[in-house]
Amino acid sequence: MDLKDKVRHVLDFPKPGIDFIDITPLLQNAAVFEYIINRFVEELENIDFDLIACSEARGFILGAPVAHKLKKGFIPIRKQNKLPAEKVSVKYDLEYGYDILEIHADAVKPGQKVVIIDDILATGGTLKANIELIEKLGGKVQKVLYLIELAELNGKEKLNGYDIFAMEKM
Amino acid sequence: MDLKDKVRHVLDFPKPGIDFIDITPLLQNAAVFEYIINRFVEELENIDFDLIACSEARGFILGAPVAHKLKKGFIPIRKQNKLPAEKVSVKYDLEYGYDILEIHADAVKPGQKVVIIDDILATGGTLKANIELIEKLGGKVQKVLYLIELAELNGKEKLNGYDIFAMEKM
Repeated sequence: MDLKDKVRHVLDFPKPGIDFIDITPLLQNAAVFEYIINRFVEELENIDFDLIACSEARGFILGAPVAHKLKKGFIPIRKQNKLPAEKVSVKYDLEYGYDILEIHADAVKPGQKVVIIDDILATGGTLKANIELIEKLGGKVQKVLYLIELAELNGKEKLNGYDIFAMEKM
Repeated sequence: MDLKDKVRHVLDFPKPGIDFIDITPLLQNAAVFEYIINRFVEELENIDFDLIACSEARGFILGAPVAHKLKKGFIPIRKQNKLPAEKVSVKYDLEYGYDILEIHADAVKPGQKVVIIDDILATGGTLKANIELIEKLGGKVQKVLYLIELAELNGKEKLNGYDIFAMEKM
């Protein structure tokens, strides 16, 4: 299935000059949403892992169904001050600005195997921050999967050395 | 399965005096997460509907797996300025403060049947806002499901006239 012609491009969002890739049309279409989740599940068939971690908010929509289907636990990675209990943080650069992501300190036990799922790889900052958080807790990142790679931003370079899967490149 | 003894209570988060119910231990435990999603799916067995709508961010973690399992589309309801395309908004009261929620104007077609899933019913403001957004677009709310009801806050009164399901009351 070609996903490129099913996303919505929103120009100048959230800032002038940005061509925002809106994935909501993919989620809203039951057949497309089912296809996407099943593709992620297929990619994980031969991967040994314990948990799926995703950063808010769009990542949750893709990662939680995969976790449920593969009978794994789900770990939310959130923006600053959203998680209530003891946590660890990383600051990272975005395509536009910077941000802080956090994970609960007891979300991953040392040695646990974790898969990361997200919607879009742009500069790679968010996914690299996800990896850092899991590794700070002693977790092992087994694979990083995402729906769309904005290839010209070269975000993949930040994920060197990791097993990655991009469903679509744009 | 008793979920009450599996949540984490975090006192004084996000403000002094609040006993915050942290559901992340339920998500992290693969067996508990599976149980929760399957319970929601069972409750929807005899409900005729087209789409599942959830507000960010925790709602996404519960609603997206149910949408996938039942082969339905997924509609994100988001905080102000997060959705990129044309949208409608509601302002609503929270347990602490107020907030604005938005939905894409083309997320629900008039007459479409929608199910809402969320994590916690507190004062009912968020879920009532979800209902209002769907009805503004001409959608029909078929059922509202949530994981935990904080019974003493009487949020259920705001949902009078709707078919609701609370998995746990605390």
